[in-house]
Amino acid sequence: MSKQMINHRGKQFSTLIDRVTPKLKRVFKTKNDLFILTSSGTGGMEAAVVNFLSSEDKVLAASIGAFGDRFADIAEKYGAEVRRIQKLWGTVVNPKELELELKLHPEIKAVLITHNETSTGVTNDLESCAAVVRKFDKLLIVDAVSSLSAIPVETDKWGLDVVVSGSQKGWMVPPGLAFISVSKKAWVAHAEAKMPRFYFDISKARTSLEKHQTSFTPNISALFALDVALDMILKEGTRSIFSRHKKIAKRLRKGVKQLGLEVFAKNGFESDTVTAIKIPSEIDARQLRQILEDEYDIVVAGGQAKLSGKVIRIGHLGLVTEDDIDDVLMSIKSILESIKSV
Amino acid sequence: MSKQMINHRGKQFSTLIDRVTPKLKRVFKTKNDLFILTSSGTGGMEAAVVNFLSSEDKVLAASIGAFGDRFADIAEKYGAEVRRIQKLWGTVVNPKELELELKLHPEIKAVLITHNETSTGVTNDLESCAAVVRKFDKLLIVDAVSSLSAIPVETDKWGLDVVVSGSQKGWMVPPGLAFISVSKKAWVAHAEAKMPRFYFDISKARTSLEKHQTSFTPNISALFALDVALDMILKEGTRSIFSRHKKIAKRLRKGVKQLGLEVFAKNGFESDTVTAIKIPSEIDARQLRQILEDEYDIVVAGGQAKLSGKVIRIGHLGLVTEDDIDDVLMSIKSILESIKSV
Repeated sequence: MSKQMINHRGKQFSTLIDRVTPKLKRVFKTKNDLFILTSSGTGGMEAAVVNFLSSEDKVLAASIGAFGDRFADIAEKYGAEVRRIQKLWGTVVNPKELELELKLHPEIKAVLITHNETSTGVTNDLESCAAVVRKFDKLLIVDAVSSLSAIPVETDKWGLDVVVSGSQKGWMVPPGLAFISVSKKAWVAHAEAKMPRFYFDISKARTSLEKHQTSFTPNISALFALDVALDMILKEGTRSIFSRHKKIAKRLRKGVKQLGLEVFAKNGFESDTVTAIKIPSEIDARQLRQILEDEYDIVVAGGQAKLSGKVIRIGHLGLVTEDDIDDVLMSIKSILESIKSV
Repeated sequence: MSKQMINHRGKQFSTLIDRVTPKLKRVFKTKNDLFILTSSGTGGMEAAVVNFLSSEDKVLAASIGAFGDRFADIAEKYGAEVRRIQKLWGTVVNPKELELELKLHPEIKAVLITHNETSTGVTNDLESCAAVVRKFDKLLIVDAVSSLSAIPVETDKWGLDVVVSGSQKGWMVPPGLAFISVSKKAWVAHAEAKMPRFYFDISKARTSLEKHQTSFTPNISALFALDVALDMILKEGTRSIFSRHKKIAKRLRKGVKQLGLEVFAKNGFESDTVTAIKIPSEIDARQLRQILEDEYDIVVAGGQAKLSGKVIRIGHLGLVTEDDIDDVLMSIKSILESIKSV
């Protein structure tokens, strides 16, 4: 990260982007085109909407939490006619419900879905949902910001047309880069898509990448870090990474129950990258987080939107270890005990 | 830059953003609102367009080069009716011409202008142009990506409604952050503006900043660097920084003439942050740049758009010293001599 800057129109940068892009594709499990954008994951989500749709297009947005709502909001902002499936938070999209919706609404052009919902700590069954969308020959646009590289995503095998991820999650890189993969079918949609775009335009990104460049000045520091992180990921192998995340997540969930607390996600839908823990109403969640940070140097997230104050969320992706998990569990235990004894 | 990441919804981040924002305002010379976005400068330019205009709004885009054209293109992409003043490259916008245009076209709502045009190495007389725009009570939207912090910009005194800059230029920080300041008049325009936006929405940015946050995961590493760079800038003082840039630029232009080469900018319009040098047709500009990079470890830029192959461009902003300038001049001299002797 602290390397000296290089000219993003020069040879060194060309070599960097030409080395990083194929490595990213290997983790995305895709032969599709893939572009690196300088933005947060939400910028990538906007790119995934505005490049493939026109205003007044009918879109089905299957939301299971705050990030699913955000995906729908973006499409609506740009004029799409959005039909929302809004599932109870803590649960997943039911592929049968998706099938029924697509059967009843043949005018739907694309489906927006969150793979791993960070606000609730829930992972959708993307493979089954994708099979349904493919059956109806709709465009499938996936927010994989907090899943890719940490839990299985098979872009080509599952037929995911547009997949977005972001550097600061499983990729173990600081924030500031988004990645987007684009299938042949998505390119066809792109050719007709009329939503306005400039900074996030993938036609520009494609032309630039053919010249071994990005369209606009990229976040070079994060690219340096990504280059190294991808080598780590590919060296360990995704199979090992996925099972490591699964194991750590299980350990955390078990520990949560032992503390007498409850995981927010309904049984069977729990995410292996982030866990939302219900905080009983007699405990001040904000205070709990503050003590964790001040006294234990552990940073956990609060609840988003309607979960504000009701859960705390623990991210366990990337470089998180079993020791980290034990550490956070022990700390929560101590705090809860000290609160009770007051 | 290589500091450990912090939670962007936590206390440490709040302190960081609350410390950096007022420092940025001091360099912008403004009491206006100011937001930090995670994108390149072009993302900031898009934010400066989509937040204040509606499709079919009449906009005057005064372009003196590739970045001026880009500003106009962004507005056009989002549906504005753009009237372009396209000046001969190497020259500036004439305030009298601007006045005539605004007199002849009272339906114009906003003026887009580039302060310092990186493609040609030319600086507009922004103060005089701003005075004209103010006289007609139009909204003035300024691309100050490659000027702010290196040459004088008086946001409040000159009445600049929207001003955009980017971290990788005079700010001495790696790329990945854009800054945008918003005047009261610009907020009024924002309230009516209907161009679609989500990632770059300044209403969201304002709500988030009131909570001491950014709307979406920010480029934290670059913020760490910016925090330090701003201390350096404020310690040296902008007056000293501006005169340093002026001195270095003069030295370079003098040296260019001594080499028997010509500065691309017309006399009196030369930028103090970037110099485009005409390359005689018998010399291969690309080869010259390649030798500079391979043999002298000096990276200079090529020409953009219609200047491709016709100029080389030397950036001299931020940490560039007189020694650096002498170094690049000597190196070009050696290369030209060796080419001639072949």
